[in-house]
Amino acid sequence: MSSITGKNIQISVFGQSHSPAAGVVIDGLPAGFRLDIDRIAAFMARRAPGRSAIVTARKEADEPEILSGLSDGCTCGAPLTAIIRNTDARSGDYAGIADTPRPSHADYAAFVKYNGFNDVYGGGHLSGRLTAPLCFAGAVCMQYLESCGIKIRSHIYSVGDVKDEPFDPVRPDGAAVDGTFPVIDTACGDRMKALIESVRAQGDSVGGVIECAVTGVPAGVGDPMFDGLENVIAKNVFAIPAVKGVEFGAGFGISAMRGSEANDPFRTDGGKITTVTNNSGGINGGISNGMPIIFRAAFRPTPSIAKTQKTVNMKTGANAELSTDGRHDPCVVVRAVPAVEAAAAVSVFDLMCNAQRTNK
Amino acid sequence: MSSITGKNIQISVFGQSHSPAAGVVIDGLPAGFRLDIDRIAAFMARRAPGRSAIVTARKEADEPEILSGLSDGCTCGAPLTAIIRNTDARSGDYAGIADTPRPSHADYAAFVKYNGFNDVYGGGHLSGRLTAPLCFAGAVCMQYLESCGIKIRSHIYSVGDVKDEPFDPVRPDGAAVDGTFPVIDTACGDRMKALIESVRAQGDSVGGVIECAVTGVPAGVGDPMFDGLENVIAKNVFAIPAVKGVEFGAGFGISAMRGSEANDPFRTDGGKITTVTNNSGGINGGISNGMPIIFRAAFRPTPSIAKTQKTVNMKTGANAELSTDGRHDPCVVVRAVPAVEAAAAVSVFDLMCNAQRTNK
Amino acid sequence: MSSITGKNIQISVFGQSHSPAAGVVIDGLPAGFRLDIDRIAAFMARRAPGRSAIVTARKEADEPEILSGLSDGCTCGAPLTAIIRNTDARSGDYAGIADTPRPSHADYAAFVKYNGFNDVYGGGHLSGRLTAPLCFAGAVCMQYLESCGIKIRSHIYSVGDVKDEPFDPVRPDGAAVDGTFPVIDTACGDRMKALIESVRAQGDSVGGVIECAVTGVPAGVGDPMFDGLENVIAKNVFAIPAVKGVEFGAGFGISAMRGSEANDPFRTDGGKITTVTNNSGGINGGISNGMPIIFRAAFRPTPSIAKTQKTVNMKTGANAELSTDGRHDPCVVVRAVPAVEAAAAVSVFDLMCNAQRTNK
Amino acid sequence: MSSITGKNIQISVFGQSHSPAAGVVIDGLPAGFRLDIDRIAAFMARRAPGRSAIVTARKEADEPEILSGLSDGCTCGAPLTAIIRNTDARSGDYAGIADTPRPSHADYAAFVKYNGFNDVYGGGHLSGRLTAPLCFAGAVCMQYLESCGIKIRSHIYSVGDVKDEPFDPVRPDGAAVDGTFPVIDTACGDRMKALIESVRAQGDSVGGVIECAVTGVPAGVGDPMFDGLENVIAKNVFAIPAVKGVEFGAGFGISAMRGSEANDPFRTDGGKITTVTNNSGGINGGISNGMPIIFRAAFRPTPSIAKTQKTVNMKTGANAELSTDGRHDPCVVVRAVPAVEAAAAVSVFDLMCNAQRTNK
Repeated sequence: MSSITGKNIQISVFGQSHSPAAGVVIDGLPAGFRLDIDRIAAFMARRAPGRSAIVTARKEADEPEILSGLSDGCTCGAPLTAIIRNTDARSGDYAGIADTPRPSHADYAAFVKYNGFNDVYGGGHLSGRLTAPLCFAGAVCMQYLESCGIKIRSHIYSVGDVKDEPFDPVRPDGAAVDGTFPVIDTACGDRMKALIESVRAQGDSVGGVIECAVTGVPAGVGDPMFDGLENVIAKNVFAIPAVKGVEFGAGFGISAMRGSEANDPFRTDGGKITTVTNNSGGINGGISNGMPIIFRAAFRPTPSIAKTQKTVNMKTGANAELSTDGRHDPCVVVRAVPAVEAAAAVSVFDLMCNAQRTNK
Repeated sequence: MSSITGKNIQISVFGQSHSPAAGVVIDGLPAGFRLDIDRIAAFMARRAPGRSAIVTARKEADEPEILSGLSDGCTCGAPLTAIIRNTDARSGDYAGIADTPRPSHADYAAFVKYNGFNDVYGGGHLSGRLTAPLCFAGAVCMQYLESCGIKIRSHIYSVGDVKDEPFDPVRPDGAAVDGTFPVIDTACGDRMKALIESVRAQGDSVGGVIECAVTGVPAGVGDPMFDGLENVIAKNVFAIPAVKGVEFGAGFGISAMRGSEANDPFRTDGGKITTVTNNSGGINGGISNGMPIIFRAAFRPTPSIAKTQKTVNMKTGANAELSTDGRHDPCVVVRAVPAVEAAAAVSVFDLMCNAQRTNK
Repeated sequence: MSSITGKNIQISVFGQSHSPAAGVVIDGLPAGFRLDIDRIAAFMARRAPGRSAIVTARKEADEPEILSGLSDGCTCGAPLTAIIRNTDARSGDYAGIADTPRPSHADYAAFVKYNGFNDVYGGGHLSGRLTAPLCFAGAVCMQYLESCGIKIRSHIYSVGDVKDEPFDPVRPDGAAVDGTFPVIDTACGDRMKALIESVRAQGDSVGGVIECAVTGVPAGVGDPMFDGLENVIAKNVFAIPAVKGVEFGAGFGISAMRGSEANDPFRTDGGKITTVTNNSGGINGGISNGMPIIFRAAFRPTPSIAKTQKTVNMKTGANAELSTDGRHDPCVVVRAVPAVEAAAAVSVFDLMCNAQRTNK
Repeated sequence: MSSITGKNIQISVFGQSHSPAAGVVIDGLPAGFRLDIDRIAAFMARRAPGRSAIVTARKEADEPEILSGLSDGCTCGAPLTAIIRNTDARSGDYAGIADTPRPSHADYAAFVKYNGFNDVYGGGHLSGRLTAPLCFAGAVCMQYLESCGIKIRSHIYSVGDVKDEPFDPVRPDGAAVDGTFPVIDTACGDRMKALIESVRAQGDSVGGVIECAVTGVPAGVGDPMFDGLENVIAKNVFAIPAVKGVEFGAGFGISAMRGSEANDPFRTDGGKITTVTNNSGGINGGISNGMPIIFRAAFRPTPSIAKTQKTVNMKTGANAELSTDGRHDPCVVVRAVPAVEAAAAVSVFDLMCNAQRTNK
C-alpha cells in the first residue's frame, strides 16, 4: 500500500475494515490553531453509517480519539493523530470471499498483489471504512481553510439518471444544499431516494456523481506540472473507493465546445479581476485563477449486491457463483459526500501552504 | 512549480516554451537496458508540430540530445537526461500578453502566483511544448514496458461531437489505429479533420477526448490508497495542458448504471482468470486486475483563438480586448495523443517497479 | 514537524512525551510476514526506562498495541500501526520551562518555531520518548532483515572517556555483547557504570558513543547520490535526540590516514570477493560492498541536569537560573542503543527494498 | 541511483564523469530573484580542477550553461536547469577497471548493483565530477540566503594530522579565511600543502576535515524528527564522494564532556537571546537556535593512488594488482570546500522555505 499523501501537509491513513482501529496522522500542520473537535465529529457523522434507511445498517460511532498533536487544545506543531475504533465488526459476513472474489471489488487484484495475505474482511484497507480517517483529516484542514475564508461544499449531482440542479459555477454558494440529503433541488432528492430504495429492493445498486465547489481560494494556488490543483485533487479523490472519473469545470462536456464558447473572458470593475463564465472550474494551467474551484467525481454502483453474480473459485480454478448478504449501501454517493469534501480540503490546504511560500 | 513526479522512477521535467531548451531527467531506471533511440525519436515526432495542415505551423525538430545516463548505449543506473533545443522561437508573437492575459490560459493565474515574474512567452513552463520532454520520458518507459509484454495505444475518441468507434474494453488491441491520424474509423477521422479545418477557418478551436488502453499489465500493480493506478495516471495526465477530465473504464457513464450491469463477472477456463466485461477499466481498488487498463482524457478547445476576446489590462485595470495571431493548433488532441500515452507509460512503469518489490 | 521518513518503507512517527499515546505507522511492508510480537516487545523493553539504577525512574510499560496492518498475525500489505500509551505522565515536573528554556534542549528553538504553541511538557514531540515508536518500527524491520540473513547489533563504544573494545570491523559478530549493559568488555562496562553513577551524584550528566554493525547485507544496496546507505542512515540516526555526529568505518579517524593505509584491498579465494580491511565501513560510493556496515553515533550529555544553569526568562527578557529536578538519565547512551539499531534497521530495510528492484 | 533531494527546493543532479554533460535541475525556486551568474561561475571555479600544482591536472572549464528557469535574468518559477559540458574526457586512463575494481572506490559495489552495466569511466555518476552541478545549485541557493542575511563559509580544518585553527563557534565570521587555500592560519596552510606534495611524491594520498559555518540563520529553522537541520545537512553532505563522517557543534568531542560543560547557557541583554557557548552548533532538537550553525565533514584519502594495490579480477576470479595512473587529487578536501558549502546552502535554503510556512 501507499497510504501517505501530501507534501507540506502529509496525511498517513491506516486501518482496515475490521482491524482494531482506523486512523490518520497529519504531519506539518502549523502550530497555534485551536481545533473545534465538536465540528470535526459533526463532519465525520455525515459519512457515518446507520443514519437512515437507505444506507448500510452497520453502526459505528465514528468518534475520533486524538492521540497526539494538541497541547491545551491547540495544534502544537507535532503530528496530529486520531483513531476511530472499529466497534461493530461482523467478520462472519465475509466468509468465503477469500476463495471467491466479489466482482468489481479489489478482492482478486489484492489477492494477487499480496500473494493471498491481504486482509479479506470487508475489503481490509481498501474498504470505504477508510474514508472515516480521511474525513477526520479533511475536517481539520477545512477549519484551517475556513479561517482563510475558504469554504468547501458539495451536493449529489446525480444518482443513476436522476440529476440534481448543478452549481452555478460562478456563484456556487448561492445554492442552498439540503442538510440531511445533500441536494439543491429537494424534489430531485426525493426521486433519488426513491430510486435508491427501488434498486435496493431489487437486490441491486446504483452509481452517481458528486459535485464539489471550493470558494474563496485566492489566485495563485497550485504547483504545475505535477502538483497543480487538478493533479492533486484528482490524486486524492481517486483514493475514495468506487470513484471512476474526475472532471473540473465544464469537464468532459468542454470537449464538445468551441474555444470561443469555452473560454472564460476576464472582466474587472477596476478592482478585482474575475471571469464572466467559469468553464475552467477556477483552474488554469493547474493554478487557481480566483474563481470557484468546481469538480465532479463519478462513483460506480456499489459492487456488493444481493443478486447472484458470476465469479471464480481461486482455490479450485472453477467458475462459481456468489451472492453477498452483508450490510451494504445500495448507493455509495450518499455517504461519500463528506469524503469528497475531505479530499478537496486536504488537497487545497496542502497547496495553500506551498503557495504561501512561493509568493515570497 | 513542482515538475517532478514518480516514486521509483522519478521524472524531472524542465524548460519553457522559449528557453534555450526543454528536457527531462529520469532517475531510477534499472541498468542494462539498451534504448532504441530511433524509436524514441519516432515517438516524439508524433507530437512534433508542423506535420500537417491542421496543426500549428511552428517547426521544431524535437530531436532529443542525450546528456547522461547511458554507457555503451545501455542504461547504466545513472539518471538519464535528454534535452530538446528550442530552435524556432518567435517570441514577438506574444507581445502584449504580459498586460492582457489570454482567457483560459494560465497567464493571469501565473502572473499572480509569481508576482509578475513568470515567463509569459508562449506560456513559459506551462506550455504544451513541455509535453516534448514528457514524451521522451514516456518513450523510454514504454520500451521497458514492451520488454515485459505491455503495450500502450490510444486514439482520438472524439473531436467536438464527432465520435470515433471506442476501444473494445476487453480486447482493445483488436482495433487498428490509423498511423497518421490516430482513429479507428478513418471515415470518422475525415469528419474530425473537416471539423477542425472548419473551426480554424472561423478563427476558433474545438476540444476532444483521447482514449488510451494499456494491455499486458499483470494483476497486482498499483499502490492504494494514494498511489493506485487511477491516482497516479490521473495525476500525470493532468500535467498535460488543456486536460479537464480523466475517467477509467466506463467512467462517468458508470454512474448511471446498476451494479448488476456495471460489475465485471470473473470467468476462468481453469487457467487464467479474466472478467467477461471491463467496466472497471482493468482496475479495482487502485490495483490492476489483469484486464486492459482503459482511460479517457478530456481536452478543452485550444484557448488561443483568432477571434477577438474580452480580457483585462492588468496594468491599467481597464477592460480590454485581445486577439491572438500566433501559430496555434485549432485542436490540441491531434498532437496530444503521444503525450497521453507517455503519461500512462511513466505512471505504469513507476508502479510496475513498486509491484516487483511488493510481490516478494 | 516532519516525522515521516523512507521511500519504499515509509515510517510516520507521532506522539509527544505526555500526549495520550506515541506511535508509528509503517507503510509499504511486504505482505505475508508473520511478526513475532514477543520479540518486538523484548526489543522495545531494552529502551524502556525504569530498568536499573542508572536510568530514569520514570516507568512506562512500553507495550505496543497494534491497531492495523495484520491479518491472522501476518502483515497483509496494509499500513502497520502500533501505539504505546503514555501511562506515567508527571507533567508537573516541567512547570516553568515554558518561560525559562532549558539550556541545550529544544525548548527555545521550538518556542520560536511554533510561536509559543509547542508542547513544552517533557519536550513534546522532541522527547527521547519518541524513540519508543522508532524502536517498534526498527524491531519490525529487523525481523524482515533477519529473514534475509542480516543482523544488527551494537554496543556502547564509550561513555565520557571510558572506551569499550571496538568491533573488529571485518568480523564484528565475533564479539559477545553483554545482554544487560551492552559492552564487549564487561570490566569496561563496570567503569562506565561507575562514571555514570558518579556524574549523577554530582547532579551532572555525561555523553558517549554507540557503535553499530550490520552484517549480512549483500553488495549493491544503497542509492547514491542522496539515498546512499550513509545518507539514509545518517538522516535517520540524527532523528534520535542528543546525537551530534555520525561516522562510518574509520570515520573521522580516516582523515588522518594515507590512502595506501585507508584503502581496503580486495581479496578472493576464487569465490566470494571480500576486503582485507574495512576502513570503508562496508560502504563505497553510498553502496554496500558486502562487508559489515559499521557506524558510530556520538551522543551529547543529557542536557537535563540537577546543577543550576543559566537561562533567560522569555516572558520578562531577564536573565534567570534554572535547575531541573525531573527524572532524567544521566547518560542517554545506555537506553539509546536499541534506538540506534532501530534507525539502522529502518534505513537498511528501506534500501534493501529498493535494491530488489534495481538489480532487475 | 536516487539523485534527487529536497522537499520545497528539489535538486535533481545528473551526469557522469565522461558523459556529454553533467547538470542539475532546481525545482521550486521562488520567482523574481535576479541571479548573479558571474558570482555563480566564480563559486564553481573554486572546485574546478587545474588551478594549482596540488590538484588534478584535468582541465574543465566548468562553465554552466543555463537551459531554463530564467526570464529576463530573473527566476520565473520554472525549474532552473544548468549543464556543464565534459570537455576534457580521457577515458583511456580507466581501461581495465571494468575487471579489476579500484580498492575503496565504488567500482565493485556499483558493478554488483547494476549487474555490470554501471558506467566505469571515472566512476560514472559516482565521480567527484558530480559536485560541479551540486556547486551550481549551492551557489544559487547561497544568493537567496545572502539576500536574507545568511552567510556560509568554510575552511580546511585539517589535512592528515595538520590542523588549522578552528572557527570560534560563537563568532565564526571573526576569522579571515584565505582566498586561494582556504585556511585561517596561512602558516598551517603551508604545512598542509607541503604534506600534500609529500604524499603525492610518494604515490599516495591523504584525508582531511572541512569545517563549515552558517551564520545569520534565524531561530526556528529545521523540521524534526527527520527533516531537522542535522538530518538534512548530513544527508546532503554524504552525497559528496569520500565523506565518511559528519558532526555538529562539539561533535564527537561532546561525547566526552559533562552536561554542565557541554550545555550552552542562554543569555540576553534584554533584547536578542543568545547562548554563551555554542557546543550545540546552533541546533537543538534539529531546529536552529539562532547561533551559528557549525559542522565538520571528514574526508577519506583519495582512493586513487599511484602505489600498487591489491584487488581482484572479477572476470577470472583471481587475485590481482592495480596501479592507477590517472590524474587524481592527492587530497580531495582542497577542492571539496565549495561542495561542502553547496550542500549546506541547499539544505538550509530548503528548510528556510519550510520555516517561512510553519511560522505562520
